[in-house]
Amino acid sequence: MVRGRFITLEGGEGAGKSTQAGRLVAALAAEGIPMLRTREPGGAPGAEAIRSVLLGQGPWDGVAECMLHFAARREHVERTIRPALETGTWVVSDRFADSTLAYQCFGQGVPRRVFDALAALALEGLRPDLTLVLEIDPEAGLARAAARGDANRYEAMDTDFHARVRDGFRAIAAAEPDRCLLLDATGTPEGVAGAILKAVRARLLP
Amino acid sequence: MVRGRFITLEGGEGAGKSTQAGRLVAALAAEGIPMLRTREPGGAPGAEAIRSVLLGQGPWDGVAECMLHFAARREHVERTIRPALETGTWVVSDRFADSTLAYQCFGQGVPRRVFDALAALALEGLRPDLTLVLEIDPEAGLARAAARGDANRYEAMDTDFHARVRDGFRAIAAAEPDRCLLLDATGTPEGVAGAILKAVRARLLP
Repeated sequence: MVRGRFITLEGGEGAGKSTQAGRLVAALAAEGIPMLRTREPGGAPGAEAIRSVLLGQGPWDGVAECMLHFAARREHVERTIRPALETGTWVVSDRFADSTLAYQCFGQGVPRRVFDALAALALEGLRPDLTLVLEIDPEAGLARAAARGDANRYEAMDTDFHARVRDGFRAIAAAEPDRCLLLDATGTPEGVAGAILKAVRARLLP
Repeated sequence: MVRGRFITLEGGEGAGKSTQAGRLVAALAAEGIPMLRTREPGGAPGAEAIRSVLLGQGPWDGVAECMLHFAARREHVERTIRPALETGTWVVSDRFADSTLAYQCFGQGVPRRVFDALAALALEGLRPDLTLVLEIDPEAGLARAAARGDANRYEAMDTDFHARVRDGFRAIAAAEPDRCLLLDATGTPEGVAGAILKAVRARLLP
């Protein structure tokens, strides 16, 4: 059995990750690839329960918040992602570990060593095969998210915070160019979907 | 301002930790010491929310469960314990980090390095001044807990599990004799309370 591929979509609020996850899953499924679409925080029963606490309470101490994200991620990885990959299913996740690094470390100032230690414990080497970082100007992204009507605690934070998150995603993409691709998300959904599918074909399909 | 002292009560189900925490707080408060009584998992609003998820869901992956305990502990330490100690209040907690080591590592087999890494991140050196480990035969303790009528997920686990937890608490007490005191909890509540107060006077009161 060939292991499935693990693709993550990352980026700030309103970048279109969810829309693009759906389009990518549909396009690859149409080619006969078994596809699992998932999201974070969440993606497993315990992880969804943690998501409710994470988003419903707060503000959290930064270290505690990182631990909650990685507790949820551990459940997601062990119960959903690894079993799917092992049976040859491809997994597309709307957010993964890079979001914790961008939001909690770059955005909120939690030390990088906290992220690194938790990632080592929770992931035990699991790494996306491809991470698509959708970039949009923070103000434009927040306007899109507000129009969608599902503001959350992060969306309510100031523009400096969102600029730090954007810079964090840029730094992550620059540091791991073999894994990450930074994509301009200001175009039409069709145009962005085309760029994503092109990247997936070039990097993951024989 | 003299820093307050931090006392933890540890032990298996039905050892009488909660009863003894109440007695100890009352005895020291009667001597004019400002006392805060707290418990784990919990002791702060976010930590209590995590407690509900921890006890209401499951079974958890062992690493995820440790992360949830330490996320709750971090909130407890930062919002409740440290602020109290810094203003000279003494803190008595019904369970603390040793419970994670005994239940998750000794009881469930989570590697010790997971505990050590999370403890370093969450506690940043905070250590109880005195830990009273109340020991009772697991079967007698479980019978007490059942009679009390508040069975939880741990109480429902088999006797081998509870024997490993008891052995874990013994190992913790043996490894840190300057911090820990192992006490026989099979006697009357008055007798155990007397032994605890004697230990507190000998070790913490001038």
